[in-house]
Amino acid sequence: MEISPVIDLLLKHRSIRKYTSDPVPDTVLQQILEAGAHAATTGNMQLYSVIVTQDAERKKALAPLHFNQPMITDAPVVLTFTADVNRFQQWCEQREAGRAYDNLLWYVCATIDCLLMAQNTVIAAEAMGLGTCFLGTTLYMAKELCEFFELPAGVIPLTTLTLGYPAEQPEKSDRLPMEGILHSERYQPYTPEAIDRIYGPKESLEQTRRLLIENALPNLAQIFTLRRYPLADNLKYTRMYLDLLKAQGYWGADEKNNTL
Amino acid sequence: MEISPVIDLLLKHRSIRKYTSDPVPDTVLQQILEAGAHAATTGNMQLYSVIVTQDAERKKALAPLHFNQPMITDAPVVLTFTADVNRFQQWCEQREAGRAYDNLLWYVCATIDCLLMAQNTVIAAEAMGLGTCFLGTTLYMAKELCEFFELPAGVIPLTTLTLGYPAEQPEKSDRLPMEGILHSERYQPYTPEAIDRIYGPKESLEQTRRLLIENALPNLAQIFTLRRYPLADNLKYTRMYLDLLKAQGYWGADEKNNTL
Repeated sequence: MEISPVIDLLLKHRSIRKYTSDPVPDTVLQQILEAGAHAATTGNMQLYSVIVTQDAERKKALAPLHFNQPMITDAPVVLTFTADVNRFQQWCEQREAGRAYDNLLWYVCATIDCLLMAQNTVIAAEAMGLGTCFLGTTLYMAKELCEFFELPAGVIPLTTLTLGYPAEQPEKSDRLPMEGILHSERYQPYTPEAIDRIYGPKESLEQTRRLLIENALPNLAQIFTLRRYPLADNLKYTRMYLDLLKAQGYWGADEKNNTL
Repeated sequence: MEISPVIDLLLKHRSIRKYTSDPVPDTVLQQILEAGAHAATTGNMQLYSVIVTQDAERKKALAPLHFNQPMITDAPVVLTFTADVNRFQQWCEQREAGRAYDNLLWYVCATIDCLLMAQNTVIAAEAMGLGTCFLGTTLYMAKELCEFFELPAGVIPLTTLTLGYPAEQPEKSDRLPMEGILHSERYQPYTPEAIDRIYGPKESLEQTRRLLIENALPNLAQIFTLRRYPLADNLKYTRMYLDLLKAQGYWGADEKNNTL
């Protein structure tokens, strides 16, 4: 096969938030998800489940759990990716093999499995001419999503992907220069000069200048810490997420030793 | 561009554990990693760093931290993917924006960013004719890897990818039938019959039959819980991983409230 089309596809990625009213044919959706499931997985255990939301009423009910971002109701398909040790453990119990995976180590393993699969699904979708957008609200509303999707213990939502044919072609997002994310042999501590160099291009974007004016703030970093993702919210959601990890049984097997 | 080559590439994925002695040209490695970094990322924050190991002596020293799996020394390139809020926080502090991301919520966000990028890197590598293998040992030896790579607070290794030109063409791994991982609208509880149906094909593979004989065990589930990933190990590694999350500062900002 030719090399360049795949790299091209990856380099052209952009999040798509507006969709045409065209439905995603079932055969296309199945093909995308099957390609997704060919991603590598820990011990070939496939510790994930994907909930497909297509029903209009369900999407309407789901929207508030994503802070009413319009992609939920506008996209023909919403995929909720969950870390899932439940299915595997149910199999183990049914084979008299016991329970071994309701603990934080396997939350992380299932998280890895789930996200590799999610990104494969994105690539497959884009290859089929679809656009996608990940919704970070999934973490904030993880508890409500557990209830909405009736997730049993061992299952926890990680991310959500909206999927449909693009009705916009937004600019590509900027990325940090590669020196900002790569380290040769050892982690190279960032000098203040390196930080200025790495974040400089982002800070001097026209879009950043607009944001600073809108928010009346002196720099982009403060837009993040004071507006978008402030500490108080982060601590609130951290506590909620920790409680949910317990509630969903990812702490169960090690209750006695969790004195953090 | 043509559609099918990308889906074909995804469906053909297999982990490659044997590599030729051909080096990976620097331009190829850069192209792969740049394509990787075009994956979606939370708030375009790119909360990850990738450590590139190519030096023969370093690979030799790294091998024991991956239980001496031969891929570490045999592969020309080893990539260690880390969740990294350090760089972003350093930028924030340098801009007098404070610290907001040294907590579990942002460990999960950084994990998402990191793994989407890792899978994009795999696709890019395979598109360039390279083979890859993820190493799950990264989680077991995360503390030792922090020391080896001199990772500061806010940085924690998640997975490792070995990379090189394939010297084998192994069989494709089996995957669960799609009904096993997809749920329409709501999570459908698995009946005992569904579990039998979903895991049946895997259980009747020739390779499974060989494993049962080698291990003198009655079924595949027990190979997982008694041999591969037994509970005692999982609890040990869970405790170590929790301690490491604290040591790497992912609990720091919420110390008082972490009474789990």
